Amino acid sequence: MAETPIRFGILGCAEIARKVSRAISLAPNAALYAVGSRSLEKATKFAASNGFPESAKIYGSYDAVLDDPNVDAVYIPLPTSLHLKWATLAAEKKKHILLEKPVALNVGEFDKIIEACESNGVQLMDSTMWMHNPRTAEMKKFISDPEKFGELRSVNAIFTFAADSDFLENDIRVKPDLDALGALGDAGWYCVRSILWANDFQLPKFVKALPGTLFNKAGVIMSCGASLHWEDGKVATFHCSFFSNLTMNVTVTGTKGTLHLNDYVIPFEEKQGSFMTATESGFTEFVTGWVPLPSQHTVMTGLPQEARMVSEFSRLVNSIKKDGSVGEKKWPSYSRKTQFVLDAVKTSIDKDGESVSLS
Amino acid sequence: MAETPIRFGILGCAEIARKVSRAISLAPNAALYAVGSRSLEKATKFAASNGFPESAKIYGSYDAVLDDPNVDAVYIPLPTSLHLKWATLAAEKKKHILLEKPVALNVGEFDKIIEACESNGVQLMDSTMWMHNPRTAEMKKFISDPEKFGELRSVNAIFTFAADSDFLENDIRVKPDLDALGALGDAGWYCVRSILWANDFQLPKFVKALPGTLFNKAGVIMSCGASLHWEDGKVATFHCSFFSNLTMNVTVTGTKGTLHLNDYVIPFEEKQGSFMTATESGFTEFVTGWVPLPSQHTVMTGLPQEARMVSEFSRLVNSIKKDGSVGEKKWPSYSRKTQFVLDAVKTSIDKDGESVSLS
Repeated sequence: MAETPIRFGILGCAEIARKVSRAISLAPNAALYAVGSRSLEKATKFAASNGFPESAKIYGSYDAVLDDPNVDAVYIPLPTSLHLKWATLAAEKKKHILLEKPVALNVGEFDKIIEACESNGVQLMDSTMWMHNPRTAEMKKFISDPEKFGELRSVNAIFTFAADSDFLENDIRVKPDLDALGALGDAGWYCVRSILWANDFQLPKFVKALPGTLFNKAGVIMSCGASLHWEDGKVATFHCSFFSNLTMNVTVTGTKGTLHLNDYVIPFEEKQGSFMTATESGFTEFVTGWVPLPSQHTVMTGLPQEARMVSEFSRLVNSIKKDGSVGEKKWPSYSRKTQFVLDAVKTSIDKDGESVSLS
Repeated sequence: MAETPIRFGILGCAEIARKVSRAISLAPNAALYAVGSRSLEKATKFAASNGFPESAKIYGSYDAVLDDPNVDAVYIPLPTSLHLKWATLAAEKKKHILLEKPVALNVGEFDKIIEACESNGVQLMDSTMWMHNPRTAEMKKFISDPEKFGELRSVNAIFTFAADSDFLENDIRVKPDLDALGALGDAGWYCVRSILWANDFQLPKFVKALPGTLFNKAGVIMSCGASLHWEDGKVATFHCSFFSNLTMNVTVTGTKGTLHLNDYVIPFEEKQGSFMTATESGFTEFVTGWVPLPSQHTVMTGLPQEARMVSEFSRLVNSIKKDGSVGEKKWPSYSRKTQFVLDAVKTSIDKDGESVSLS
């Protein structure tokens, strides 16, 4: 039996909402239903140029979207400082929530969002698209394989991009009152998520910011890094920045294997994604080459990763709607842990690189 | 006019000396001439199985090699704790020196070796083979290009390998009296060298060891990492370990470009080496892929990198022999800076991660 498409309302007309609107159109179990903006004109334009059907509801406020009884779920791409208010309101109106990252200004705020969602029986998921790529599942298989990968030892994650002058002046991610965590909340979110993902979401024992955090004039982080440390000696490092060419590396080493990829957040190509693995790598007799050579794996994406995300979210919403199931708690749990680590890194930055315990 | 081949004597029969013997055979301007070991039997066996000519001199001591007036140059693969003694003696006997890494137990010792080489007019070069690969020169062109790469912002280097139980029990690199710096002096040497290489050998302002250094029972480093920091905000991190699968990554980000490779020390294949570059990377309209895509570059190696090293060293020796030129000081300078940074990282490890200034 085909699922009833979940009807989405979108709060605001952020640039990223264009990509997610397309994803909602592509997902077989989701439908673009409404968009709200503080400007009715902007909402009208947005709907017209982003594949909304003729019948779509165009609203001049976010409240109006939440008050529409036909809206099943909302996608919230608003600046982070508005997440607590609008996610809480949405939950109270029984709307399921797909929430942009970083999910909140801090984990305390996010706990209030989780509480609102749980007490109103709505699904909460953050919009970390690469988690839903079939490549991610294949990579997880590899690093979970005791024969091919062994035990996890280290992770390095890099996410940088070269922001242009317009971004550095005007983007919400450089404004202390909108996205206060700056590059840490944006690019750093993905780094931390990849590290937690590789660690099966086991939290580190402590984190330590690296020296050399760069801030803009308003005091927002433009570039930073940190190391994360687990009880058993596992270590991870990451570097995120608005000042370097686009780079998205993850390297995961285990006692027996290594995983590499250079496009973990946005695959180079939409239709397929690759990664490299190596197992029990050694050398030729005279150490003049590797035996065995690492191998390249390519996974066909099928539905794009963001459409898979919408589809998985919609599937969970449908299941709640159908039988009142309690929703999938792993997604808000992943979000919370990511935010928790980001907060700890921010605290360490504020304390000049002191260790910050997470236990 | 063809150069006269430089006649090499080898001190000791270390495993790595097999590879370098082959390299000496392959280099057109070098020749295997003598080998010395504390055991004449070992030296005889070594010469027989490593391409030495019938006429080669087999000696039962290192001294005998140094006393042979026909030996132009020595290759010293002895444990690091013996470098000061044997390199100094070799220099005094006017032998040019190709020295295994790490070059000394600390930079103070290495300064004595440099002094001995300078006052005796002999060339000194360390055995960091990848520096001589033609791929390295191509990569340097890329990261020196203001249009394609812009200004350097960050480097991450990883060198790990999974040592087996025999190595962890018996190798010189786990013995405090032989190679006291352990994984830092071995795998870490390459990490630090790649970081300095990317920085045109400009020293960092300070370094800081990451928490989580692992030691063996004898107190030798088995796994560690550090961050390096420059005045202008450039940052580098590295991780080296004997406990993870073989991994050799370098990622260099600039304001406009990125360089990646996964086999910087030993290329996957002897005959060719590849690297990936990206310049002004951006996204497709819906951020569903990269535009432009990174590009892969393959460089044919020709003579293997270690034979190129021997050849370059021999060229310099020949030039000193011919016209009494003073030798190429950049090579000992690269060695010294690498050792200097290693020492600082070691100090930081000993001081529980304190910043250690290099200025």
